[in-house]
Amino acid sequence: MILDNIKEVGDIKKITKADYQELAQEIRDFLIKHISRTGGHLGSNLGAVELTMALHLVLDLPKDKIIWDVGHQSYTHKLLTGRREGFDTLRKYGGMSGFPKRKESDCDAFDTGHSSTSISAGLGMVCARDLKGTDETIVSVIGDGALTGGMAFEALNNAGKLETNFIIVLNDNNMSIAENVGGLSNYLNGIRTAEPYLELKEGIYNSLMKSGGEGLVRTIQKTKSSIKQLVVPGMLFENMGITYLGPVNGHDVNAVKKALNAAKRVKGAVMVHVMTEKGKGYGPAERHPARFHGAEPFDIESGMPIKTRDKANYTDVFATVMCTLGDKREDVVAVTAAMPDGTGLKRFHNMYPDRFFDVGIAEEHAMTFAAGLAAGGLRPVVAIYSSFLQRAYDQIIHDVCIQNLPVTIAVDRAGLVGADGETHQGIFDLSYLSSIPGLTVMAPKNKWELADMLKYAVNSGIPVAIRYPRGEAYDGLKEYRRPIEHGKCDPIYLEDEICLVAVGSMVQVAVEIREELIKEGHKCTLINARFVQPPDPEMAEIAGKHRIVVSLEENVRSGGFGERFLDVLEEKGYAKNIKYIHVAIPDVYVEHGNVEILKKETGIDKESVLEKIREALK
Amino acid sequence: MILDNIKEVGDIKKITKADYQELAQEIRDFLIKHISRTGGHLGSNLGAVELTMALHLVLDLPKDKIIWDVGHQSYTHKLLTGRREGFDTLRKYGGMSGFPKRKESDCDAFDTGHSSTSISAGLGMVCARDLKGTDETIVSVIGDGALTGGMAFEALNNAGKLETNFIIVLNDNNMSIAENVGGLSNYLNGIRTAEPYLELKEGIYNSLMKSGGEGLVRTIQKTKSSIKQLVVPGMLFENMGITYLGPVNGHDVNAVKKALNAAKRVKGAVMVHVMTEKGKGYGPAERHPARFHGAEPFDIESGMPIKTRDKANYTDVFATVMCTLGDKREDVVAVTAAMPDGTGLKRFHNMYPDRFFDVGIAEEHAMTFAAGLAAGGLRPVVAIYSSFLQRAYDQIIHDVCIQNLPVTIAVDRAGLVGADGETHQGIFDLSYLSSIPGLTVMAPKNKWELADMLKYAVNSGIPVAIRYPRGEAYDGLKEYRRPIEHGKCDPIYLEDEICLVAVGSMVQVAVEIREELIKEGHKCTLINARFVQPPDPEMAEIAGKHRIVVSLEENVRSGGFGERFLDVLEEKGYAKNIKYIHVAIPDVYVEHGNVEILKKETGIDKESVLEKIREALK
Repeated sequence: MILDNIKEVGDIKKITKADYQELAQEIRDFLIKHISRTGGHLGSNLGAVELTMALHLVLDLPKDKIIWDVGHQSYTHKLLTGRREGFDTLRKYGGMSGFPKRKESDCDAFDTGHSSTSISAGLGMVCARDLKGTDETIVSVIGDGALTGGMAFEALNNAGKLETNFIIVLNDNNMSIAENVGGLSNYLNGIRTAEPYLELKEGIYNSLMKSGGEGLVRTIQKTKSSIKQLVVPGMLFENMGITYLGPVNGHDVNAVKKALNAAKRVKGAVMVHVMTEKGKGYGPAERHPARFHGAEPFDIESGMPIKTRDKANYTDVFATVMCTLGDKREDVVAVTAAMPDGTGLKRFHNMYPDRFFDVGIAEEHAMTFAAGLAAGGLRPVVAIYSSFLQRAYDQIIHDVCIQNLPVTIAVDRAGLVGADGETHQGIFDLSYLSSIPGLTVMAPKNKWELADMLKYAVNSGIPVAIRYPRGEAYDGLKEYRRPIEHGKCDPIYLEDEICLVAVGSMVQVAVEIREELIKEGHKCTLINARFVQPPDPEMAEIAGKHRIVVSLEENVRSGGFGERFLDVLEEKGYAKNIKYIHVAIPDVYVEHGNVEILKKETGIDKESVLEKIREALK
Repeated sequence: MILDNIKEVGDIKKITKADYQELAQEIRDFLIKHISRTGGHLGSNLGAVELTMALHLVLDLPKDKIIWDVGHQSYTHKLLTGRREGFDTLRKYGGMSGFPKRKESDCDAFDTGHSSTSISAGLGMVCARDLKGTDETIVSVIGDGALTGGMAFEALNNAGKLETNFIIVLNDNNMSIAENVGGLSNYLNGIRTAEPYLELKEGIYNSLMKSGGEGLVRTIQKTKSSIKQLVVPGMLFENMGITYLGPVNGHDVNAVKKALNAAKRVKGAVMVHVMTEKGKGYGPAERHPARFHGAEPFDIESGMPIKTRDKANYTDVFATVMCTLGDKREDVVAVTAAMPDGTGLKRFHNMYPDRFFDVGIAEEHAMTFAAGLAAGGLRPVVAIYSSFLQRAYDQIIHDVCIQNLPVTIAVDRAGLVGADGETHQGIFDLSYLSSIPGLTVMAPKNKWELADMLKYAVNSGIPVAIRYPRGEAYDGLKEYRRPIEHGKCDPIYLEDEICLVAVGSMVQVAVEIREELIKEGHKCTLINARFVQPPDPEMAEIAGKHRIVVSLEENVRSGGFGERFLDVLEEKGYAKNIKYIHVAIPDVYVEHGNVEILKKETGIDKESVLEKIREALK
């Protein structure tokens, strides 16, 4: 195997040109084999094999820097930088991250995970390089999906005035996570299909390739103005001051190498437009790009997931209820930021295509667009993952809540998400959402309550956020289905001695803790908070009559539910009588790994909480 | 006066064409006269007089909708919609807002204040209109500065696929608040100056104007492809699927009217590019656009502010220390998002032009760019107003803090800002910043402490945010200048009975409260918290020995300092012994008005706090 000769960064340069294709195949086989066992981002990685090889052939790592936008396409990069063994523990607790990590390798120049950051970060490194007077090459690799994110445009706007080299590789697979949307996508499609232009551009491009050094720069500068007399691919970028090279076949290592070498000589920001195919070389991934975006372990032969789910997850429940609501209310519309599959809104889309909006990777726009829909008299539901919703914090305040517009925010993947790690943990939303005046923040205890809350929110006529976790929906406590009333908690068991006050996913944990405490001879009240904002004063009235009060949430401690609830207890004079146990995720970033392990690690699992209660009971 | 005939919306339609110029002059005189007394956004309003007149002549308000991006240019709109009397109380407590407000008039379609939201909101209203089957015209008016904000691009990308009418007026004055930056600005400049193109476009444009209805649409569709054979103004927008009309002289009411009428017939998103001059018609504002962006009351003759400041404000202190730091450390660089004047960084820019970056109205990019600068080995200081920093919440987490990069965030205008009102109050930052693991959050008690904190932060090698208020810097407690130690509070007076624990600006208030309490025969400790995150456990040790503990902060209650401090007190077992008085801004949006009035209104002024303490002492 050629791959066996690649033990550390730079080894790929010892491979002969004739072997590039074979190496690419071996890398693909390796990735498919390993990801089929561990799960991971398969499609984007299969698409970027040759592009990554070309980058490693042209650049001198770790001196030169590659910034991988989003970062889940960096597996080949990890393979080529001596991290082959890491694939056995990919995305496992204590194992290799699925994203670039500076602490993992000096070849990882910048941590990513969220979209559209790479040009900003790369431009920062370019300006730092120029001030320091060093000469490393800096390359940001961004997908066409990520390019629809506004901050990529903000960065391009700034890169346009640059007078030193900065390479932006546009890895164009014509996909966000779902199909790409919008004017930019149409524009890129136009480039792809505009044969006559391609030939024309090819001519200019070839002449650029033939000249070199200073001559090349002059040629580019001369041709830039003459190019502007014609409509050629990349005009949109050229208009912003970015030199455009391409399009280039991204599965031809030599073609990409040539383009990158030409790009290195440009004095300014240069975009190399590389055409790739998501899932390239693995049939099931080519045919089902969304399914293989972030794949669970699968059978290589059939491409089917190995584990089938018995139970519905919260996303399924959300999807179902959205369809019901769509039927009941014609004014209900749905908004997603490039996640029709992940959020479950695809079903709503199928049933009500006119009332579904996929805005692309554009969370800020998604929220203000929803505010506009609401101001226009509709009842939008915006579904965004907790960690991506961080992008829309200002828009929730400024556009939705100051105007008190009836937007429902469905906060999926709230809490610990597991394998995707630090950048994807949804552990801040209770803090940042609760600081927003006028926003009602709820979390359901089980699948029926999610359904009830969603219906409640859409009918409420005010801004509401509902946060629910990744994974299987809890189907316990079915018999405790009390109607939702604004700001009212849901007391499930009323006893004395110990009072558990739990938020959303922690109700299930609290049920288990309570059973244990009862076995141990204690009495135990359990309140489902339901409303994190506003907190129900009645919770304090009930809790204040107990000896020990335990607040439980799957969120960081600072700014979360527990602090606020304690504040209410103190205000009502109960803090004096009780021992308060504050269960929350400590204020740290939580790495990737199995959610059960992470819960234990952060002290929010059943056993850790029981230990604290037993300690307090002594 | 013609203006006297304009008493309510629509009255402008009764004015004859011959009187347009006279009316524009009267509006300008009115605005200059009133804003010279009340203060306000003069420059942008003088630039938008004729544009606003044209919009009101062409549209049918309130049925049709205008969304004013940022919103501070809406004064003429307010004049033309029956709010003339409001100008006596402009931006005063209980008076007329300086921004569009739905609750103020049904002619205000959408509240704004922050930049770059209007296309998203407008597009939402367009989609709502089409689903409802109504036929109102929807117009978003956005400046060229606001167009550098990423979410405007996200929205344009989505508008490109629209098949029904949506008018985007690009009010191009070649300015952000400061001079405009970046590739887009260069591009728009190119349009402005490209005479031959203008004539060509004029020809196409005229032919469009002559035809009408269906014919016009066909003409546009036909010409669209032929236009694309040539480089004409607006190609960048046409490439994204937006029909481009212009450029149009924005100070010629009839020319703008004609363009708007043509735009109304386009089936899709159409951009009308209107060229205006900031400060038009008032010499001092034309010559000093930054000074007249948001003006204090001024003398009309000279254009000079009426009140001169005796004392330095915090921004001045920041500006001075940045220059000193720039001298001491060559790796210190400064980043602003279109606010070189407002943040005080202009002085740093003058001294170290290579180390200063104005990225335009692009807070998200600003933060990740700073992370890139830091990853490249520099020590960036990013200065952003508290309420605009909300835009960069995700970037602070994802790009700065997860990687623990040494970025210093200077959070100016933190706390109540006064006249700009709800959208500009900096009352959330302690909440949203404190929820970010790894971010140190500080607030200085006086001007010397701001200097010390800034030096400390830059030298610390970790991410640090320092929040400081608008207005005069406190110069009391000069003799209490203890060196900054990480996570350590600053106990100023140690006594017993009552313990005041104050954050930043509230230390000054606490000093006054303490003096009063001492007069009343009490003893009173005063601790300056210094670090809001991490909170110093020593504060709890000291406070726990008092009968009454008062926490004071100029931030909303939820997620702020007081909740966290109580949590520390409880954890250490002190909550049982004390009466806790939690002084913070209630969880509401605070309207415009004098800061002293607002403090009283929100209960964080000296008297309100004293009352609570006296109550507790009983």
